[in-house]
This record gives sequence, C-alpha cells and structure tokens, in this order.
Amino acid sequence: MRELVMSRWTRISVMVAIIGMAFLGIPALVHAADPNGADTIAANPNAGLNMAWTLIAGFLVFFMQLGFAFLGAGLIRSKNTVNYMTKSFLDFCIASLGFWAFGFALMFGGSKLWPGLEEGNSIIGFSGFFLSGESYDVSTIMGWFFQMVFAATAATIVAGAVAERMKITAYLAYSFIIGALIYPIYGHWVWGGGWLATLDIGGTVGVRDFAGSGVVHAVGGTAALVGAWMVGPRIGKFNTDGTPNLIKGHNLPYVAIGTFILFFGWFGFNPGSTLAATDLRISVIAVNTFLAGATGAVVAMYWKFARTGKADLVVACNGALAGLVAITAPCAFVAPWAAVVIGAAAVPVMLAAAYFVERVLKVDDVVGAVPVHAGAGLWGLIAVGIFADGTYGGVSGLVDGNANQLVLQIIDVVTVVAWTGATAFLTFFAIKKAMGLRATKEEELAGLDVPEHGAEAYPVDVPARAPVTAAGMAD
Amino acid sequence: MRELVMSRWTRISVMVAIIGMAFLGIPALVHAADPNGADTIAANPNAGLNMAWTLIAGFLVFFMQLGFAFLGAGLIRSKNTVNYMTKSFLDFCIASLGFWAFGFALMFGGSKLWPGLEEGNSIIGFSGFFLSGESYDVSTIMGWFFQMVFAATAATIVAGAVAERMKITAYLAYSFIIGALIYPIYGHWVWGGGWLATLDIGGTVGVRDFAGSGVVHAVGGTAALVGAWMVGPRIGKFNTDGTPNLIKGHNLPYVAIGTFILFFGWFGFNPGSTLAATDLRISVIAVNTFLAGATGAVVAMYWKFARTGKADLVVACNGALAGLVAITAPCAFVAPWAAVVIGAAAVPVMLAAAYFVERVLKVDDVVGAVPVHAGAGLWGLIAVGIFADGTYGGVSGLVDGNANQLVLQIIDVVTVVAWTGATAFLTFFAIKKAMGLRATKEEELAGLDVPEHGAEAYPVDVPARAPVTAAGMAD
Amino acid sequence: MRELVMSRWTRISVMVAIIGMAFLGIPALVHAADPNGADTIAANPNAGLNMAWTLIAGFLVFFMQLGFAFLGAGLIRSKNTVNYMTKSFLDFCIASLGFWAFGFALMFGGSKLWPGLEEGNSIIGFSGFFLSGESYDVSTIMGWFFQMVFAATAATIVAGAVAERMKITAYLAYSFIIGALIYPIYGHWVWGGGWLATLDIGGTVGVRDFAGSGVVHAVGGTAALVGAWMVGPRIGKFNTDGTPNLIKGHNLPYVAIGTFILFFGWFGFNPGSTLAATDLRISVIAVNTFLAGATGAVVAMYWKFARTGKADLVVACNGALAGLVAITAPCAFVAPWAAVVIGAAAVPVMLAAAYFVERVLKVDDVVGAVPVHAGAGLWGLIAVGIFADGTYGGVSGLVDGNANQLVLQIIDVVTVVAWTGATAFLTFFAIKKAMGLRATKEEELAGLDVPEHGAEAYPVDVPARAPVTAAGMAD
Repeated sequence: MRELVMSRWTRISVMVAIIGMAFLGIPALVHAADPNGADTIAANPNAGLNMAWTLIAGFLVFFMQLGFAFLGAGLIRSKNTVNYMTKSFLDFCIASLGFWAFGFALMFGGSKLWPGLEEGNSIIGFSGFFLSGESYDVSTIMGWFFQMVFAATAATIVAGAVAERMKITAYLAYSFIIGALIYPIYGHWVWGGGWLATLDIGGTVGVRDFAGSGVVHAVGGTAALVGAWMVGPRIGKFNTDGTPNLIKGHNLPYVAIGTFILFFGWFGFNPGSTLAATDLRISVIAVNTFLAGATGAVVAMYWKFARTGKADLVVACNGALAGLVAITAPCAFVAPWAAVVIGAAAVPVMLAAAYFVERVLKVDDVVGAVPVHAGAGLWGLIAVGIFADGTYGGVSGLVDGNANQLVLQIIDVVTVVAWTGATAFLTFFAIKKAMGLRATKEEELAGLDVPEHGAEAYPVDVPARAPVTAAGMAD
Repeated sequence: MRELVMSRWTRISVMVAIIGMAFLGIPALVHAADPNGADTIAANPNAGLNMAWTLIAGFLVFFMQLGFAFLGAGLIRSKNTVNYMTKSFLDFCIASLGFWAFGFALMFGGSKLWPGLEEGNSIIGFSGFFLSGESYDVSTIMGWFFQMVFAATAATIVAGAVAERMKITAYLAYSFIIGALIYPIYGHWVWGGGWLATLDIGGTVGVRDFAGSGVVHAVGGTAALVGAWMVGPRIGKFNTDGTPNLIKGHNLPYVAIGTFILFFGWFGFNPGSTLAATDLRISVIAVNTFLAGATGAVVAMYWKFARTGKADLVVACNGALAGLVAITAPCAFVAPWAAVVIGAAAVPVMLAAAYFVERVLKVDDVVGAVPVHAGAGLWGLIAVGIFADGTYGGVSGLVDGNANQLVLQIIDVVTVVAWTGATAFLTFFAIKKAMGLRATKEEELAGLDVPEHGAEAYPVDVPARAPVTAAGMAD
Repeated sequence: MRELVMSRWTRISVMVAIIGMAFLGIPALVHAADPNGADTIAANPNAGLNMAWTLIAGFLVFFMQLGFAFLGAGLIRSKNTVNYMTKSFLDFCIASLGFWAFGFALMFGGSKLWPGLEEGNSIIGFSGFFLSGESYDVSTIMGWFFQMVFAATAATIVAGAVAERMKITAYLAYSFIIGALIYPIYGHWVWGGGWLATLDIGGTVGVRDFAGSGVVHAVGGTAALVGAWMVGPRIGKFNTDGTPNLIKGHNLPYVAIGTFILFFGWFGFNPGSTLAATDLRISVIAVNTFLAGATGAVVAMYWKFARTGKADLVVACNGALAGLVAITAPCAFVAPWAAVVIGAAAVPVMLAAAYFVERVLKVDDVVGAVPVHAGAGLWGLIAVGIFADGTYGGVSGLVDGNANQLVLQIIDVVTVVAWTGATAFLTFFAIKKAMGLRATKEEELAGLDVPEHGAEAYPVDVPARAPVTAAGMAD
C-alpha cells in the first residue's frame, strides 16, 4: 500500500518534469538575447570582472549546502543520517529545478534587471520561465545562477527543523514548492522591484534587505517553524507535562565543521550580493560579515559559560550563525563597529527565540533552525533601520538620524512572517492530505534510514585487529 | 623478501626524482620568457582578470581531490581506509610531478598556446619539460597549473575502482605513468592541437571536448576498467555462479559529502576551461553544469524509487556525478534546456554501464568509477554532436542541422577507449611483472591498513563515560 | 570554586569587550576616508579586480581553519574532541577580535599602506585601532581582512601542540594575546615597514618573507613549542626513562582531509599575498606552492617507506605541510625547480625537528606543529637567501650570486625565535598564574569534553539493526 502511494507520486513527479522540459525546449531554439556575451562585454568592459565575482560568490553559496548537511547530521541520531543527507542533497536539486521552471520568472519578471525579464507587476513577475527565449542571455543566466543558490538555501533551512520524522517524499514535495512559489513571490516584493522595494514613507529608499536576512533566512526559518509544528515533535522530545528532553545528536564535531563551512560560504552570500567587484564596498561587507559572526560565537560561548561553567560548542556555533544571519540584511549599510553590536545582540535574540519555540510553543526544532534563521533574521531586518549610517546606497537608520527606515523594516518583518507562515501552512497541509507528512511510529523508532532508504549510515564492518607496530613521526 | 622488493623500488623512485631535478635545474637559470609578467600585462590589460579566473578555477579543481577522497572512503570498508586515503593523497602528488617533468611537454609542445611550447607535431609534443627555459613564463605556468589539476583528476578516478586490494606501490607507479604519458598524449590530440582537434570532415571545427568528458573522465574511467579487471575482484565480491554480492561501504554520509565537494569543484572544472573571464559564456557554462548535475540526481533518485520504493542515496549521488561528467564536454556549446536533457539521459547510460561492468564483464568496480566516468563521459562526447546549438565556438550539432560533428565525436569515442584501454593494459601489465599488482590474500582479508601502512583508520580509544549533564540551547 | 574562577574571568572578558566597543563607536561616526569606494575606483580602475582577488584569497585562508580543525581532531583521542573543536573555532574568533581592537594598529600603523595608518615608528605602529576614523575605508578594510586571517592562522597553530590537556579558558586567553600583541608587533617589523623590512647590509632590499614562513608559521610554531613545554606532556606520553610513547589519534582519515583543506587554502595564502591580480607573478607563486607541497608529500612518504616498509599517511601529510610552510616565504622569488628542492629539503628539516622536540627537549607536541610550522618555517626564511633568482621584487639569493640576503634572512630567523619565545613565555606564565594552564589529572584522564564542555563528541545512540535489503547500483 505504502509502496503504491510512493509509485504513484513518483510517476506524477516524473511526468511534471517531462512536461516542464517540453514547455521550454522549443522557444530556446528560436531566439536569444546575447547567448555568448560578445555584445555585452563590448558594451561594458567591466562585465567580465563582475561576472567572475558573481559566479565565484555563487559557488561559495552553493558550498553552504555542505555546511547545512554537516550541521544537521551532527545534531541528529545516526539512525536518521542517511535520510538527512538524502534530504540535504535532493532538496537543493529539486528546489533549484523549481526555481528554473517557475520561481525565477515569478521573482524577477518585470524587474528588467537583465534581458528577458520584461513582464511583471508589483505583486508578481511572469517572464523568464525555463531561461528560454530572450532570457537565454549571459547576464540573465548569471543572475539566475546567483539567485538560484539563494533560493536553494532558503529551502534547505527547513531540513534540520523537521529532521528525524518527516517522510522524504513529503519533504521533497515541499522543496519544490518553496523554490517555485513561496520564496520567489516574497522575493519579488523585495528584490524583484515589487511593492516592498519601492515603498516610500518619506525620506527612504524602500525596504532594504541587502543579502537576505529576510528573503532567505526569515523565509526559511518561518517555514521551518510551520513545518516542525505541523509534523509534530519527535517521540520522546516532550514529557507528558510538556517539559522538553535533550535528544543528543551523534557527532558534535560535525556541528563545528558545518559551521566553518557555512561561515566560509557566507563570504559569497553577502559580498557577492553586490553582483559587482567594481563596487568596492565588498571589503566592508566581508569584514562586517566576519565581525558579526565572530562576535556572535564569542558572546554566545561566554554567555553560556557564565551561566553553566561549560564552554558549549553547539551554542557557540549557533551564536556564530545567528550573528551571520543578522548581519546579512545590514552588511552593506553599516560600519564595522555596528557589525560587532549587531552580532552580539543576535545572541540574546536567538536564545530567547529558542526558549520561545521549545518552551512556549512546544515545537521540536531539532537543530535550532527557527531561532537562528527566523529569530536572528528578523533582528537583521530591524538592524538596518537602526544602524545604517548613510555611507552606502542612500540607506539611513536611527544612527544617521532617520527613523522612517525603521518603520519600513518593521513592515517587512510583519510581511515576511505573515506570507511565509500562511503559504507554508497551506503547503504542508496539502502535502499532509496528499501523501502524509510523517513516517510511522515504527519507522521513527527504528530510524528512517532503513525503511525509507534501505541503508544504514555506518554499516558495521569488523576492523582488523592485528598487532599494530605504528611508529611516531620522530622515529 | 617483501621488504626488500619495496626498498629497491623506493630507491629507484628516489633516484628517478633526483635525476629529474638535475635535468631541469640549470636551464631555468639561463633564460626565461616573462617570469614576472610585466610585459604580458602591458600587452594585454585583461591578463590579470583572466589569470585570476583561471587560477581560482584551478584551485576549485584541486579541491575535487577531497571530494574523490570522501566519496571513495565512504564506499569501502574501514579496514582499507588508511590505504585509500594514502592513495588519494599521493596519486595527486605523483601524477602532477610526472606531468611537470614530462606530461605537460608531451601534451602542449607544439601547441604554441604559451611561450616555450614551440616544438611538437600532430601526434606528440616535445617542449616545455620541467617548466624550464622559455616556459618559465607567467602565462605558461598559469596554463601548466590549470592543466595539471586536470591530469591529476584523471589519475585519481582509478583509485576507487581498484580499492581494497591493489598494492599501494603498484598504484603509485600507475599514477606516475598516467600523469606522464597516458593522459597527456591523448590530451595532445584533443587539446594540444593534435590530429583530433584539427580533424575536419566538412563543416566542422574538429573534435570538441570543452572541459574533458573524454580527455579527463573517459580516460580515467577506461583506465579504471582495465585496472579493476587486471587486479581482479575482491574476495567475496562474486559467488561461484558469477552473481555479485553487495559489499557495503562503511560511511554513507561520506558519499554525499564527497559528491557535494565534487559538485562544487566542477564549477572550476567547466567554467574555468574558458581560461578567461572576459569570455562571458562562463555564466551559461556554470548554469549548464549545475542543471545537468541536479537533474541527474533527481532522475536517478526517482528512477530507483519507482522500482524499489527506496530513496537510494548512493544512486542519487552517482546520478549527479553522471550528469556532471556528461555535461563536461558540451557545457559551453548547448542551451540550458539541453543541459537538463543531457543530465537526465546520463542516468540510464550510467545504470546500463554499471550493469554491463558488474553483470556481463564481471569486473569489481568498488565505487562505480567506470559507469560514472567512462559511461557518462562517452555520452558527453556524443552529446556535443547532438545538442551544440551554434551559439558558441562555431560548434553545431544535430539540433542546429549539422550531422558531421556527431561523426567526429564518435571517432573521438572510439579513439579514447582504444588508446586508454591499450596503454592502461600495458601499464598495469608491466607493473604486475615488475612489482605485483595485488596484496596477498591475508593482507586483503585483514585489510590493507595495517600491513601496508602500520595504522588503523579509527584506533579504538575508550571514550569517557562519566555522567553528562548537557543542557539544551534554550536553557 | 572552579566555577567561581571561571565566572570571574568570564565577567572580566565581557567587560573588556564592552569597553572595547565604547572606544570605537563614536569616532567611526565622525569621519571616514572612502567608505564606499567611489573615489578609490575612480582613481584606479584596477582596484575592483585587485580587491576581488585579495578578498577571495582571504576567504581561502579563512577556510584553512577547517583544515587545522580536521587535522588536529584526527590526531587526538575522541574524549578530547569537543574540546579541540571548541578551541579551533573560538581561537579564530577571539584572536581576530584582538587583531581588530589592537593588533592591526600595532602592525600597520605608520606603514601608510592604506588610509588611516599614518602613525607609527620602526618598532611599533599606533593608528587604525578598531577600524574607526580614517581607517573606515574600503582599501584599509580590505587590508584588515587579509591580514586578520593570517593573524588567526598563527593563533590556531598552537591548538594542536597543547591539545588534550590545556584548559579552554587558558587557551582562549592566549589566543587574544597572540592576535593582539605577539603576532602584530613582530609582523610590524617585517610587513609593516619596521626595522627588519628596511634593514640593509648592502645590495639587499631588507628581510623578505613573502607570505609568512616566519611571520605566521614560525611565530605560531615557536609559540606552540613554548606552550607545549609549559603545559607539560600528556599523562602517559613519556616513560620514566624519558622515552616517548605513541598516543594514537582517533581518526586517521581526518588527517588527510585536513591536509587537503590546508593545501587548498594555501592557494589563497601565498598567491593572495600579492594583494593584486594585476601582478601576474601569481601564477608562478601558485605553482611553486603546489610543487613544494607535492614534493614534500612524496619525499616524506618514500623516506619513511624506505626505512620501515610502511607508507605512513601522517608522515606524508606532514611532509606536504612542511613543503608548503617552507615555500611560503620564498614562493614569489624562486623558479619552479627551486620550489621542488625547497619542498624536498623541508622533509629532513621537519623530521630532524620532530626528533629534537620529542627526544631531546622531551616536549609533547601532539600534532607535530613545531617541526612543521617552526622547523620548516625557519627553513623557508633561509631558502629566500639561497634560491631567490632576481626575477621578482629585486630579491637575489646565492643562486643569483648575492650572499647578503642570506645574512639578512638569518638575522630574521634569530629574531622571530627570540621574540616569540620570550613573549609566548611571558604570556603563558601570566596565564598560569592568573587562571592555571592545565586541566586536573582527573579531567585529563576522563577527557576534557565532559568536564569542560558537558558533552561528548560521539554520544552513543543505538543504530537500527533491522534487516537491510539494500540493492547495488546495477540492480
């Protein structure tokens, strides 16, 4: 019975993919804007430098997927690790195909940022589907690449929150929807020339979210909260009196490794968002990113240390990530000292959000995705309105004597939570009805690896136990 | 006795290295073309950008070695893991020294691509040895770096196929030969201005293999097939009736981690092969690379899922790699929609090749190197002849109404298999006679780590079992 | 009691941090040089390319932290792994904050390399604190980023030498001091326009250390020696007769993984040190770096193999690292053949240093940080004086007929050991008095993870043992 349901959905998925291909194949043969770039670079000699910068930054953002994979794998039990790695790997692939087919057109249609994106309004875009027709252009395709890795990042944030009990089929269906619909429509409002980007209440330039504290992290974090709530807590997470238990992950070093990789990738995420190396603000952005992350780690570690006398590695790592998430929106608009303050303040925000999610909402967020990405992400949106110092992009916050930007940023906070909360709810609700969200109790207790994947993460093979005569390096 | 044989070979190797150094030391002091680049950048103001692009791409290709190391380590048993990691690390070093001493000169001599490469014909090159003399030039040395990481990639593909039973000394001897001879001579034919590059049967520009589906992957994959066949299957792989057993690897998460890293490195491999960021086609190449890999993963996962009801992580990873290998030759010549088709089609090609190798040839290819690199690599060469759309480099395939390019690509397919098959056979045959290919039965059963390396991958140390009072992040 | 001591230090640390912020907040609002880069790029159209190059190289150097984390984690026992990862992650964050507050100003004040660095003399600098005031400038901040990742590398080298017994609080206090004082003051002498940089004994250009064999590696390695000596050997390392025991690490594959990552990051470390991609020597630097590392690995492996008949993975990895450390100072000044010689010669230097440290000094250096970073680092400084061929930067060594450069380099060798030895001694001495250097005997025997961090690296969770029906890829 279960097998049949799976097969049906499999066939439907494959059909959708094939139909998708049919849609786009023909028009791409018909015409294109500048598919080899000869005209583009003739018109702008800096196009090569800026394209190289943007692509390399995008490669680093892609690599963050490995950071998320390590981070989550470390915080779960080994019996679910194949499941988690499969989700981590496939969510990216599926969300990006959704972004290729539909998302990019919904997000950037009408923005006219690059050729082939002419059609759209302040609510939604509708040109650039499948990168076909006029959007077969070197600039448009560069833009797609950089935006796609962001969409995929938003998607993968959810994996950790719903780990150890959500069915892989349900999770992959969600991945397609966030990449094709949830992320891009909100993204259109902020980055695609939509209503938030152009909102003006006097003396402002519209909502500003430089690299996506809101567009990527708050969207992913809010979807994570909805998903973790709807799929329910893991067996054993909460006692009958509602108090939570700590379910230990199986590999703490992986948490630090994942954090290192994410930190590294953030240097693509934030500085790359200029889409230009001729914009020398990239150095300030890189340093602000670094300082916020480092400060977050140090403050979180000593905060916990002062309370418990223990240097908590997981809290330090989440502190770094909270600092990085928080600086993502304001990174281009603030001075280094403000980055330190923003990163430091992200820690209590994250810790409070973690308390709220686990103790008040009683939601089981396995890796802390909600406090790190939604909590610190919303703080980052606010921080633009406070710390923007007017040296870049015409954005001024309280420190520069302008209160209106803060008002705009608060409107954005409300919007991103409302939009993502509502659409994620509808998505997970529809998936629950269609194919079910959660593995069976038996599967969960046994771990998802064997029933869903037919494999164990660490098959036991008996290592050799012959006498070893190893010699030291100094011999 | 065994010790003596090892010592003799060691001494011979060291002597070869020393003689090698003597060869090159003096001429480098005599003259050079442009060793500090002042003249080069004065003549071409874009040289800095293009050199930075090429070097950074080369760094990413170098990093793929870590991907191969993780991937293979995950698919073998822990008792052979030190052996595998040692091979992975040293094959790169040794192959590259072979490429420095001999390979580069054989491959690019006569190409006149950069200073110091004047001598050569359509079969073989013979200038540029040891990067000495005129080839001590910033452009030539940049070219060497990028080409060297490709040569080393071809070498390391074999490690996984022959894992768990080939002696380390034999494997390292092979590594030198593929880097010094097998890879570069064929490479000369396609990338060094040799006979395949210039073959014209009317309306074509010669064989085209943009980033090496053939030159790197089919060479490595074919050598892997020959090596795995000649060293024989692992004890226990095949039953007496010829049916295969699955010998499980010891760490499935490593398979996904390795695939992520390889995918990341491919963004250097393919877009970097323009050797220029002023060639804006790099964005299309990056996106085609991504789409083929993502599609390969999704198609492979659902293909297996539809048949077995299991979401197979290893198959998904190999699907991604097959897509990436297949798009490597055509990445610059096709539109994004074609990349999706090429990546999707790589999956059945890979699965059929895997079946053929294991069930028909009864060769024990531990990690699936042959189907992924040879199978999908040959498909990639063919795909150039089908999907090249004429927008770049003057290459037109069937979709652009030209059938002749496909004929050329088929000639290339036959050539690469014949050349690599024959020379790899001679290489492994000579090594077998000189020092033996395979560890003893006792060593294989015990695992190669202790007898060959005097070390275990995971020495048992008793972890502390004191009462733990860890607290959650929300405390 | 212990808890109270910790809390006190925690509070002091937090206070220092807060005071630090107060220092810098206000001036940054007052004035700045060119915070958005518009003037800078107008004056120099290549500024974008060179900034992109420098930042990307800096990202790669940042990533080396993960290499150090893997390398050290592999060579220690699992019971100290959370401790090691926490140190690895936090030392970077803390050292960099120290470099932000104080170190950068001490190192580059007076160099006038970028705006805001006017004040300083040949012994020490004193402008640029907190990146505030005039140093809020895109060029200065770019410079800070690249220099900061170097400072943090020097700091983290010590972690491996003192692993498994130094208290985390002591280690983190040291990290702040090396980043704020020890590293930058010596760095000022060589890279900040100080007395070593300008020393001239006729026909020389001053001491030259292109990318930091001395400034980074010998400083880190010497501090590691002092730290490991003062904290004392691990329980069980030395027998009562003074002979050492091999205490095996818990994960040898991590050693190779860490080495791959460090090797990768070195392509940022060395070529990035031009701070300019318009300086085409970057290709020669990258290739010299590669050749020295590869040669070091091969020579080390066969050296050990010839003596023991075993292919020792750890020795091969340390050989690669020794080659890389050694080429770091001369990488820009020598030809490829010399890089091979320098890398090969680094191996006996490293092995002799390892023997000296363990057998003569009887110091317990867990990961071999002293021989690799101090031993090969000092050799690298010497190598500049021998192999510099006069093609770049006006630096000529013995091979170009100039003996005076060698004299200068020897002066540098003496200086770096004396300075770092003395200041590291004072630092660890002060920390020992203030808070103690070493964990208790009980904590050490149990492993530091539970007492200091309240966590185990690999909590035991029982994996599923249901019947598995995995199928191979060829099914």
